[in-house]
Amino acid sequence: MDYVYGPGKNHLFVPGPVNIPEPVIRAMNRNNEDYRSPAVPALTKTLLEDVKKIFKTTSGTPFMIPTTGTGAWESALTNTLSPGDRTVSFLIGQFSLLWIDQQQRLKFNVDVVESDWGQGANLDILAEKLAADTAHTIKAICIVHNETATGVTNNLATVRKILDHYQHPALFLVDGVSSICALDFRMDEWGVDVALTGSQKALSLPTGMGIVCASPKALEASKTAKSVRVFFDWNDYLKFYKMGTYWPYTPSIQLLYGLRAALDLIFEEGLDNVIARHSRLAKATRLAVEAWGLKNCTQKEEWFSDTVTAVVVPSYIDSSEIVRRAWKRYNLSLGLGLNKVAGKVFRIGHLGNLNELQLLGCLAGVEMILKDVGYPVKLGSGVAAACAYLQNTIPLIPSRI
Amino acid sequence: MDYVYGPGKNHLFVPGPVNIPEPVIRAMNRNNEDYRSPAVPALTKTLLEDVKKIFKTTSGTPFMIPTTGTGAWESALTNTLSPGDRTVSFLIGQFSLLWIDQQQRLKFNVDVVESDWGQGANLDILAEKLAADTAHTIKAICIVHNETATGVTNNLATVRKILDHYQHPALFLVDGVSSICALDFRMDEWGVDVALTGSQKALSLPTGMGIVCASPKALEASKTAKSVRVFFDWNDYLKFYKMGTYWPYTPSIQLLYGLRAALDLIFEEGLDNVIARHSRLAKATRLAVEAWGLKNCTQKEEWFSDTVTAVVVPSYIDSSEIVRRAWKRYNLSLGLGLNKVAGKVFRIGHLGNLNELQLLGCLAGVEMILKDVGYPVKLGSGVAAACAYLQNTIPLIPSRI
Amino acid sequence: MDYVYGPGKNHLFVPGPVNIPEPVIRAMNRNNEDYRSPAVPALTKTLLEDVKKIFKTTSGTPFMIPTTGTGAWESALTNTLSPGDRTVSFLIGQFSLLWIDQQQRLKFNVDVVESDWGQGANLDILAEKLAADTAHTIKAICIVHNETATGVTNNLATVRKILDHYQHPALFLVDGVSSICALDFRMDEWGVDVALTGSQKALSLPTGMGIVCASPKALEASKTAKSVRVFFDWNDYLKFYKMGTYWPYTPSIQLLYGLRAALDLIFEEGLDNVIARHSRLAKATRLAVEAWGLKNCTQKEEWFSDTVTAVVVPSYIDSSEIVRRAWKRYNLSLGLGLNKVAGKVFRIGHLGNLNELQLLGCLAGVEMILKDVGYPVKLGSGVAAACAYLQNTIPLIPSRI
Amino acid sequence: MDYVYGPGKNHLFVPGPVNIPEPVIRAMNRNNEDYRSPAVPALTKTLLEDVKKIFKTTSGTPFMIPTTGTGAWESALTNTLSPGDRTVSFLIGQFSLLWIDQQQRLKFNVDVVESDWGQGANLDILAEKLAADTAHTIKAICIVHNETATGVTNNLATVRKILDHYQHPALFLVDGVSSICALDFRMDEWGVDVALTGSQKALSLPTGMGIVCASPKALEASKTAKSVRVFFDWNDYLKFYKMGTYWPYTPSIQLLYGLRAALDLIFEEGLDNVIARHSRLAKATRLAVEAWGLKNCTQKEEWFSDTVTAVVVPSYIDSSEIVRRAWKRYNLSLGLGLNKVAGKVFRIGHLGNLNELQLLGCLAGVEMILKDVGYPVKLGSGVAAACAYLQNTIPLIPSRI
Repeated sequence: MDYVYGPGKNHLFVPGPVNIPEPVIRAMNRNNEDYRSPAVPALTKTLLEDVKKIFKTTSGTPFMIPTTGTGAWESALTNTLSPGDRTVSFLIGQFSLLWIDQQQRLKFNVDVVESDWGQGANLDILAEKLAADTAHTIKAICIVHNETATGVTNNLATVRKILDHYQHPALFLVDGVSSICALDFRMDEWGVDVALTGSQKALSLPTGMGIVCASPKALEASKTAKSVRVFFDWNDYLKFYKMGTYWPYTPSIQLLYGLRAALDLIFEEGLDNVIARHSRLAKATRLAVEAWGLKNCTQKEEWFSDTVTAVVVPSYIDSSEIVRRAWKRYNLSLGLGLNKVAGKVFRIGHLGNLNELQLLGCLAGVEMILKDVGYPVKLGSGVAAACAYLQNTIPLIPSRI
Repeated sequence: MDYVYGPGKNHLFVPGPVNIPEPVIRAMNRNNEDYRSPAVPALTKTLLEDVKKIFKTTSGTPFMIPTTGTGAWESALTNTLSPGDRTVSFLIGQFSLLWIDQQQRLKFNVDVVESDWGQGANLDILAEKLAADTAHTIKAICIVHNETATGVTNNLATVRKILDHYQHPALFLVDGVSSICALDFRMDEWGVDVALTGSQKALSLPTGMGIVCASPKALEASKTAKSVRVFFDWNDYLKFYKMGTYWPYTPSIQLLYGLRAALDLIFEEGLDNVIARHSRLAKATRLAVEAWGLKNCTQKEEWFSDTVTAVVVPSYIDSSEIVRRAWKRYNLSLGLGLNKVAGKVFRIGHLGNLNELQLLGCLAGVEMILKDVGYPVKLGSGVAAACAYLQNTIPLIPSRI
Repeated sequence: MDYVYGPGKNHLFVPGPVNIPEPVIRAMNRNNEDYRSPAVPALTKTLLEDVKKIFKTTSGTPFMIPTTGTGAWESALTNTLSPGDRTVSFLIGQFSLLWIDQQQRLKFNVDVVESDWGQGANLDILAEKLAADTAHTIKAICIVHNETATGVTNNLATVRKILDHYQHPALFLVDGVSSICALDFRMDEWGVDVALTGSQKALSLPTGMGIVCASPKALEASKTAKSVRVFFDWNDYLKFYKMGTYWPYTPSIQLLYGLRAALDLIFEEGLDNVIARHSRLAKATRLAVEAWGLKNCTQKEEWFSDTVTAVVVPSYIDSSEIVRRAWKRYNLSLGLGLNKVAGKVFRIGHLGNLNELQLLGCLAGVEMILKDVGYPVKLGSGVAAACAYLQNTIPLIPSRI
Repeated sequence: MDYVYGPGKNHLFVPGPVNIPEPVIRAMNRNNEDYRSPAVPALTKTLLEDVKKIFKTTSGTPFMIPTTGTGAWESALTNTLSPGDRTVSFLIGQFSLLWIDQQQRLKFNVDVVESDWGQGANLDILAEKLAADTAHTIKAICIVHNETATGVTNNLATVRKILDHYQHPALFLVDGVSSICALDFRMDEWGVDVALTGSQKALSLPTGMGIVCASPKALEASKTAKSVRVFFDWNDYLKFYKMGTYWPYTPSIQLLYGLRAALDLIFEEGLDNVIARHSRLAKATRLAVEAWGLKNCTQKEEWFSDTVTAVVVPSYIDSSEIVRRAWKRYNLSLGLGLNKVAGKVFRIGHLGNLNELQLLGCLAGVEMILKDVGYPVKLGSGVAAACAYLQNTIPLIPSRI
């Protein structure tokens, strides 16, 4: 029935796709519907209104595109920029690398600011570039809020401050794929022009919906952007928004109902509580890593990611072996090290619909695997460190008080 | 729980999204999984192999892209053509119109061959154009196999014959969105270079997967095609195919398992039996329309579609009212007339996972609605005509003999 | 994946188990839970309160027993009667026969009042017996509200009138398995002492919950009833009701959530609207039967059942062949004739979560089958008769106006 | 949608109902079906054959009754015994107490052999009683294989030995509710006459099916047993078995398909591997309890249960507070102490579809809760002890090698 069965639950700790809450699985367990009936637009309308809340925007316009994060990137870029436009883009890991690759292939003139993998975006260089760019040749700053490959979170508030300082009109484009709905993200306050995420990340849905949110300035830019686009064109959506039918082409009925359920759960828990839960799980993970005597791939605390932790293994261990063994022996799915850090790090994703005891099961598993591969870990050490922190910080579940 | 509840089942007779078989709904009722585990590539491999069977190709290369039919169009075009390339494209209804619009916006030089809505593609003109094009400026023939808006099926075998007759090297690109897996389609035999469909049509899945299949000649063309593309680029897929990990970005785990279940059901029934069932249901529908004294929007029998029937209503009736009433009073979802035929036709979709008694319920409903809106139908007449035909042609269900 | 697949939906028209609404299937799509947590009692409390509404009782006490209708019968009898007690019981078809068999095996002294199959309970004889029973030896009147085998509905209001007329203290026990939640049933108004139903009937749930509702007089009787019982003992339930934990043994978590969803849907539609819908579908079915020139097994209009219609076939046809063929060729599930009427009638169940177009599909199917087996039906005749009635009586779906 | 939502998964560690495998949830996610169609008997036939394997019997006859464990008890007793019959029954905890209560209310003459809660059945007294009973007044030995309230497993092989030693013809009736399919159980080898279990225990299904398996000797006894029974009567089943329609009344379609899927998973893993997994998880739990410095309620190692561990808390702690807090703060469901051990023990159920990392998450949670309630546990100590054992004993998942 299943391709590769193992008893009990799979422990899904990759940084996406993440665990789907049971109520969301239930909401999507349904037949198709006519998306031109009055019901689907009525549902869509509430979604477009409510999805803005997870971006913390009131002025933004969201687009729920049947695509992945890669498609959401493309939508953000092609709707706001023209071939040849200069972008400043930060290369700090595999996903920022892929976005830069996309920018180059879409024929933008990409000014790459590279950091060591494990470091955040070099914002000093951004400042220099903006200072030098009095002619305003830089059309957009492209930055990944959370680099999933290295567990690095960039400081977006500072980016905005720098832009403001130089009164630079460049668009501020943010990949929030592994951040939005899990990390503190404030589209309006930080003056982000396009922010985007994917359904299978902190929203805890299946893959298949790329959500892109555009500021009024970005919408304005889209009117003159010359990049060729059809499927990803915001204008087609806007035309159907005006008609009240909302969809230029067929959406996934199941994902719409799933998103409704996912948002309901997030609002019931409270978005700030969701973010606090991510922070708690991340801190517990980092304490475990420390207790194991291992290093976080992220080089400074200011960049620590609350959605994924990349753990550096000693040079005599191949981190891929850890990931393989986790799945084969413990039914535990961890993230591989990618590209430059392949074999050197493994990643624990702790985003989405997850709680403390799930994480502790994962950490206990990692301890056994570390021992399996010859690392002299003290069993129980990481779990103990995590528990010591969590035991004092886990709140009562509000609905159960 | 649901946005707009009505007792009993919704009768879904739009030409997509269509009814999902229960075993497929079950197969998709699942949590996310790590798509980099060994299980997902193993599953993907069987899907890529088996999906070729519904295209009737052995030499084609399929791409299962997380997108809709519109995205599949874009993938077909941008991977094989360069801006400025001349295409010959047939305008016969709303969906061919939208594809042509996309071709134009993607900067191709589109040579539009228009027919009345209700007619098939004018292949005489194609012959003329090919005859004249001794310089081979025509790079591609773009044709919709089945125009969903008017219920017109084009003759693809003839297209191939004409191409062969003039020994013209143009690529042969086919929109099979509302045909493949329901109508007779033979990619290899007809020398189709790119064929595409969407998961929510005859495959009877949710929306979200655009399946594009490329001939060796199309793959060759993709090496030099200059259209800008990233998300839709076949090359990224091919790279990952070679590595055996298959996915350049995150697929929908649920749709993969759903496709597995859908293909299993199709092969269990037998693809030719599936096609015969579509033919049977379509014929029954047309007999009912005739019995009601109404006209098929499709002007000649040779173009009759076996997946959707567009019914012309008398001028004193607004066909949209029929669709509205169907949904509000009978929990029946019919297709609207679109664009040029808005208000003039309503459409009965009879594709995907459907059987005879479901169709007869729909036809009975349409009879009541026709009466509701003032058309002097003889109640029972259409159902009787359909039954008379079906009663002699429905085979025993093989697994129940 | 499924044992015997057929394309499209199965058309389920047996008089139970019936079609489950999609929202109910969704609600039951879940893992187990600890039934001793605070959540399950909280849920149970709302169910016990709300389930009384479908019995139209305020003074009754409901028991939701993990069993079938047969178990619910046993619970009704053993909690109120002692071995040797005299009951008056009406034999009018297979299900009343089975109940009488149970009463006899439970050692009651059963006074059987038999009617022809197709007739209702002979209440004149009841009157005679009560008139004669001045010593009040009759302890209970046992009557099936709706005999599922013959499609006969008994008049319970008259039973109460007769009991009152003779001021007879006998308990009034009602099998409402195929009536409650579909037919007009009024526990309090009619002075019913025990009424019972099963989850898989008009409530449209899976099998597995027998719901028994006891009047204060029945509860009083249970204190002295000497029938041996443990699993079915109301007293164990009452003890746990008092403690607020509700369950003397483990309930099905899924059925509890399913019942919650089922009741929500019924109340959203309105119980009286649900009953009116059953009446409408039943009338349409009877008109079709008439149009086919066939006879209703029910001999008088006053007994016509609104949940199931038993259709008498000509003597040269074996009704079992109709049922077999329906399933094998049309994916249609009809009810067999049972016992005395085996081979002579087939049954169309029209209860539970069903709408008009579903029924019309079934009726069209029956027409084809009748023709298959050699009955000279005029195709379309039954559907036309049903449509003519329905087209004037189907209301708009309230939530869609 | 859910009554009391908490983020992430609920950690279900009560000794039933237990976690349902995802493939089983999927298999049950379906509409009702006609149980008189050819498909359901065909399915039932395979189930009756395969379910015998989990009892390790070839000569037994299984009955899959729509009821709970309490009903299964009643079926076992009433089909084999007559009122007044003498039974020897062992009182060692809450569930054996309830079974004895049932035996007494069913009017048997119960010879109760009591032990301290935490001890196993006193088989020396059994030997004495059998030795003394040369007249064979003892008709049945009733024993709970695994007492769920105290985590005590009785030695059934020894019971058989004693019976054989005295050549005593008493029936050997076994409650295997929390043992069968998890502990080593051998119906044929141990000469068990009736064994029973419930669907929601090691089979990992929803509640609602009591499975009773009768030896030829038990079937023989049922022919003369005078206990009044109808719903639970094996004879009704046997009649329908002979006809090949299998069901005297309506089964739950969903549970039948669920059981099919559950058995498939068990056989895929291998029943002996399933039992070994239970043994591994239980041993790990006991090592954790020891590491915490707490006592197992079970007084001797020979009685240690591999499906549930009852943990004794210090007298200054109320174990109910542990259970309450687990659910309210950690979304962890633990078992309460019942009756004599209420407030004194809490229980960790480790049966059914569970794996090592799930258990470790639970153990980590228990550590935090112990600290919450003032017990001076060393955080990580139990998890470390469990990991040390598990890390050396968890095998690779066979399907993933």
